[in-house]
Amino acid sequence: MNKQELIKQIQKKKSFLCVGLDVDIDKIPAHLKKEEDPIFAFNKAIIDATHQLAVAYKPNIAFYEAYGVKGWKSLQKTINYLNDQYPEIFTIADAKRGDIGNTSTMYAKAFFEDLGFDSVTVAPYMGSDSVEPFLDFKDKFTILLGLTSNKGGLDFQGLSVSDGKLYQEVLRTAVTWKNSEQLMFVVGATKASYFEGIRKIVPNHFLLVPGVGAQGGSLQDVCKYGLTEEVGLLVNSSRGIIYAGNDVDFAKKAQEEAQKLQLEMEQIFLENNLINF
Amino acid sequence: MNKQELIKQIQKKKSFLCVGLDVDIDKIPAHLKKEEDPIFAFNKAIIDATHQLAVAYKPNIAFYEAYGVKGWKSLQKTINYLNDQYPEIFTIADAKRGDIGNTSTMYAKAFFEDLGFDSVTVAPYMGSDSVEPFLDFKDKFTILLGLTSNKGGLDFQGLSVSDGKLYQEVLRTAVTWKNSEQLMFVVGATKASYFEGIRKIVPNHFLLVPGVGAQGGSLQDVCKYGLTEEVGLLVNSSRGIIYAGNDVDFAKKAQEEAQKLQLEMEQIFLENNLINF
Repeated sequence: MNKQELIKQIQKKKSFLCVGLDVDIDKIPAHLKKEEDPIFAFNKAIIDATHQLAVAYKPNIAFYEAYGVKGWKSLQKTINYLNDQYPEIFTIADAKRGDIGNTSTMYAKAFFEDLGFDSVTVAPYMGSDSVEPFLDFKDKFTILLGLTSNKGGLDFQGLSVSDGKLYQEVLRTAVTWKNSEQLMFVVGATKASYFEGIRKIVPNHFLLVPGVGAQGGSLQDVCKYGLTEEVGLLVNSSRGIIYAGNDVDFAKKAQEEAQKLQLEMEQIFLENNLINF
Repeated sequence: MNKQELIKQIQKKKSFLCVGLDVDIDKIPAHLKKEEDPIFAFNKAIIDATHQLAVAYKPNIAFYEAYGVKGWKSLQKTINYLNDQYPEIFTIADAKRGDIGNTSTMYAKAFFEDLGFDSVTVAPYMGSDSVEPFLDFKDKFTILLGLTSNKGGLDFQGLSVSDGKLYQEVLRTAVTWKNSEQLMFVVGATKASYFEGIRKIVPNHFLLVPGVGAQGGSLQDVCKYGLTEEVGLLVNSSRGIIYAGNDVDFAKKAQEEAQKLQLEMEQIFLENNLINF
């Protein structure tokens, strides 16, 4: 998928919601456990119930790997279902990969070619040649960790380097890499005030924003500094949506939560005159 | 496996060699391609031929993920074979994982519990709570990226922070974390002179050292500064061993290359009076 197709979808749905599929078998409704593949059955129901409200889905790869071959099968079925049924949806493999050149190429093949995701999250610690192999794939996006919203996020990302903080240096350096227009960045919502400085470094790149909802971030605060003329944000909610209910009506409950966020987003579109951007 | 068992194996074999299983289907001998699982067949032959010369094996997870469910099955068979046939061997999942707390726990379960590896490589960018969940697993080791040997390794790792370079700050911080005695660190061999400073920060932790051989690092240089009284090093060679041959005698060729490194290591033991340490 290219950037224009993503933006078109955002316009159409008046939403920049990403639904995180962090599916823990211990947290899904009991009645699904008799299904042949409970995790896929859960994902399918969530996707069917929310696909008109969300523009992106983000399986968290750890939750599939934890079940080995079986989990990897559930992941494959989920991405195949998204690609077959809802090809307009932007798909994100939340994998936080990154390794030396030829190894990163293998990871890129795994997520872009074998599984068919539109994008993958990547960690920057190993530098340029650990990220550039991902950027070689046309119409695929590499979502680089910038500033993360977890407790220890600032342990290293917040260290002062020559010209600001480490996470700023990561953004500043990454935009100089080959094919950097195919980059997006992870920026946690719990640090909304940081968005102002970040937008000075990456004024136009899309930001993937976790941490709204369960982790305490506010959508309004994020949009205040993070929004661009083309929206430029994908705001993720995982647990707040997928575990909104825990009974036979779980998908309906998820839909209600997604709807709340979509309406908030539509309101933000109105307030910012983004309806016909 | 605990540290004492690893050291005992090192003493017994007079080796601290780790064999990297970065298995690319396009690079394995043609006659293996008719096997039901060519990658596992290749790994099995390499392991059988080298297990008396090496103390650790390190599958590079990207090379398995790139083949999806099939690749994950080859990985599972490989680790099962190692655990069943050669339980004294230290196993490393070279996965470079790292995510927020509950996600890191899922990755730890994937590699330590579902697959049964002794250790996993982890990236530090997301800080304490992205690494500590791995350290919660008893008798399992977390091998944190310190200084990597790739071209872009110093892009961020080499940035000056308050008290030295970023990679030094990562080591210095990591040893303060809970259960930090279960940490090891990745330090690339192509920067052998850096080992002196690193040993001041982590005098006793094991270092996993890639980059000897194909990437140009010298074993003598690494040992000059990196060796401890308990050896404290696992030196990895991947391509130099596993692709030493490309015909029906590939395993024998791999054995010969592994033997050369083991003999070099035995010589280093002698020179450093480590025979009966």
